[in-house]
Amino acid sequence: MSVALLLDALERHLPPGTLSREAGDLVTYGRDWTKVHEPAPCAVALPSSASDVATVVRWANENKVALVPSGGRTGLAAGAVAARGELVVSLSRMRAMGEVDTVGATLRVEAGAITEAVHEHTKPHGLTWPVDFASKGSSTVGGNIATNAGGVKVIRYGLTRQWVLGLEVVLPNGELIAPGGSLEKNNSGLDLRQLFIGSEGTLGIVTAATLKLTRIPEALDVMLFAVADLTAVLTLFSAARKGPFTISAYECFTDACLSRLMRHRNVASPFGEPHSHFVLLEVETAERAALEAWVADVFERGLANDGVMAQHGGEAAQLWTLREGISESLSATGFPHKNDIALPIAELLPFTTALEELMASRYPGWEICLFGHIGDGNLHVNIMKPDAMAKDDFLAKTKDVDGDMFRLVQRHRGSISAEHGIGLLKKPYLSFTRSPEELSVMRAVKAALDPNNVMNPGKIFD
Amino acid sequence: MSVALLLDALERHLPPGTLSREAGDLVTYGRDWTKVHEPAPCAVALPSSASDVATVVRWANENKVALVPSGGRTGLAAGAVAARGELVVSLSRMRAMGEVDTVGATLRVEAGAITEAVHEHTKPHGLTWPVDFASKGSSTVGGNIATNAGGVKVIRYGLTRQWVLGLEVVLPNGELIAPGGSLEKNNSGLDLRQLFIGSEGTLGIVTAATLKLTRIPEALDVMLFAVADLTAVLTLFSAARKGPFTISAYECFTDACLSRLMRHRNVASPFGEPHSHFVLLEVETAERAALEAWVADVFERGLANDGVMAQHGGEAAQLWTLREGISESLSATGFPHKNDIALPIAELLPFTTALEELMASRYPGWEICLFGHIGDGNLHVNIMKPDAMAKDDFLAKTKDVDGDMFRLVQRHRGSISAEHGIGLLKKPYLSFTRSPEELSVMRAVKAALDPNNVMNPGKIFD
Repeated sequence: MSVALLLDALERHLPPGTLSREAGDLVTYGRDWTKVHEPAPCAVALPSSASDVATVVRWANENKVALVPSGGRTGLAAGAVAARGELVVSLSRMRAMGEVDTVGATLRVEAGAITEAVHEHTKPHGLTWPVDFASKGSSTVGGNIATNAGGVKVIRYGLTRQWVLGLEVVLPNGELIAPGGSLEKNNSGLDLRQLFIGSEGTLGIVTAATLKLTRIPEALDVMLFAVADLTAVLTLFSAARKGPFTISAYECFTDACLSRLMRHRNVASPFGEPHSHFVLLEVETAERAALEAWVADVFERGLANDGVMAQHGGEAAQLWTLREGISESLSATGFPHKNDIALPIAELLPFTTALEELMASRYPGWEICLFGHIGDGNLHVNIMKPDAMAKDDFLAKTKDVDGDMFRLVQRHRGSISAEHGIGLLKKPYLSFTRSPEELSVMRAVKAALDPNNVMNPGKIFD
Repeated sequence: MSVALLLDALERHLPPGTLSREAGDLVTYGRDWTKVHEPAPCAVALPSSASDVATVVRWANENKVALVPSGGRTGLAAGAVAARGELVVSLSRMRAMGEVDTVGATLRVEAGAITEAVHEHTKPHGLTWPVDFASKGSSTVGGNIATNAGGVKVIRYGLTRQWVLGLEVVLPNGELIAPGGSLEKNNSGLDLRQLFIGSEGTLGIVTAATLKLTRIPEALDVMLFAVADLTAVLTLFSAARKGPFTISAYECFTDACLSRLMRHRNVASPFGEPHSHFVLLEVETAERAALEAWVADVFERGLANDGVMAQHGGEAAQLWTLREGISESLSATGFPHKNDIALPIAELLPFTTALEELMASRYPGWEICLFGHIGDGNLHVNIMKPDAMAKDDFLAKTKDVDGDMFRLVQRHRGSISAEHGIGLLKKPYLSFTRSPEELSVMRAVKAALDPNNVMNPGKIFD
């Protein structure tokens, strides 16, 4: 039977308006933020309930039609792209949020709930779901779970994995399971939650989740330090770890990033003189005096060349802009080739030294803009297109750069994807991070759960 | 070929002294703390390296000989028992610990490293591995990982799962994988670490791990409160969550527990009058004055009937004894039937009310001693043998009690095993917590990784 006829049959088992074959929807729902692959889904299913999702999945499994689960489509690895005639299953009509359980500090939501909506929903109770990043206005809980999303607060709160107590998942055979419930502890056999979190939609479709909440911190202090080099960034990090506070964020960026941001945003540096590296430190502290003593000690010991501390929320937001505005500023002032890599913290220095040597010798004159969640060992490596080079030449050459860089990542025991996932985009490079034996285990698990390979096939691995 | 001859063949591929068939070793290594099943292993392998472990596993897989991975044998669910002629693979000769990485706050250890030895090893650096419980002097890192161990600090630090960055695992086919490394972030395909953590040795043998460390807290304040009932325990918990501190432990026990402890230890209650429920609260606080103001507010609002705060480390230890000495005191003053269950925190009250009603109507006169990690929703339910009842009668009846209680646990969306795991002991009751569809997924994963069913077969499920 043709896919069109199969879709007609599916449509009869779903509430009216659940299935769309409109051209606009196909384009909208067929891709994520990567915009590398042309969207080409056969249709878009917009179910309103887990039971509708199950109907779609059973149909797909019986007819061997590939599915692409879809959340807020903010992914950066083409994990939610439908480029091969798949049926997109969007959770965007399943956004319901339950009542906040203030005693247990939990919240059950449907998978399509928007990250920021969850924050707003829990805020009046003094609670939050501490999964937080730039795309929170569009990203969904289901997408965060599928990618085990990270962000700016990982050093304090960990990844999404840590903040999910229970899941509701439609398995590739259409069965519904609900591993985990709203329990903090449940050592009763394999923890299936963990299998689905971060699986990029290859093992099932998450339809709902019970989230673990935490108290909103009382007050945060934000500081920006200027330091001499990456060694100084890491020395200051060691000192911060021993400070009289809880580190809420420890972010780093270089002068190359700041210059482009200043140019794009037309803002001035908070420092009178130029510096090489900058650290944004955000802390939770009960005692301001102790924090100030720590800062004084930092300068006495020569751990930083200069520094400013935000005196109120507005200043804190300004300092944060210097970090959070980087990505946008790089795109506005040039053409960046982006990578999101992770390294053991102890390897950050040797890795970046080796990377700089590699770039200088093999790609002389190319500018690297380094920034990222340095406290988690997570570097966003942005290689800027030389102005004189044609875009196509540059894109072709970035493949060589990626190969060279990922070999370095491998040598320094790092990961080719810290928080963005693999999707279609990083699939060719997965072997730099995962061994053939690990890939065999992944494939065995995939085959065990999804023998007909209907669930986001071709993502992560073939 | 007979198992004896197969073992002879294996012995030739291992360093001398790796395999033991001595009667004493068979008994020692054939069981854990449960002492319910008679130990009956065919032999005990005591490998000194991951490569030796791989040799044993390859042999077992080729010859379809069942293996039982074995750590400190402190388990309470008979997960490391060899009662059916299995070969025990003890990691007790693999206790090496690497240098503490003070920059990354990580430590690589072999799986046989003792929990407390890890604490001692990291302490001089101001760091700790916050997996902490009574059996830390015998339990091993590998055993903690296999059971996703909990303990008294879960409310502050989470379960073992959260403190493991990387694993080295021998798969059932004898291949070695090392998922995770020493990275904080690594979203590159299925997170295989998570699959092995908590799998009770059914998917492979963990031979080494890279542990995530955290700073040792500066100072802890310990308080004991006397309150009217479980409602008051939970109201106080809500107040504590809003307190000017980080909760490090929130433990609860009843007067029945305290009475038996006072009798056994010959100590006096810290309170002049009897009370119904007690809460031990341990907090990390930067400001003692703020803590004292919070405590004053607790009494002003009538949230507690009485309370004491430890003024120094010795007093804190005394208060902790009242909680940590309970288990021993119950066994010394009577015959407890133990269960370790978890509930959503919001269900603790309706569950315990229903449990008390059930016990009063169906088992009148039986004493229940309730204590546990109430902040995690984790109750240790100890049902005491009535003095006049014969032990055999009691043991037979506890099977009925378990059935009745687990039905209640199921109704209140709880788990039959919060932190002890399933092993052999809880296997008959697993369906009260996990659905048939979940069990199918677990079995499919098990079959995919271990088609010959050599890895701890019969544990968790058949």
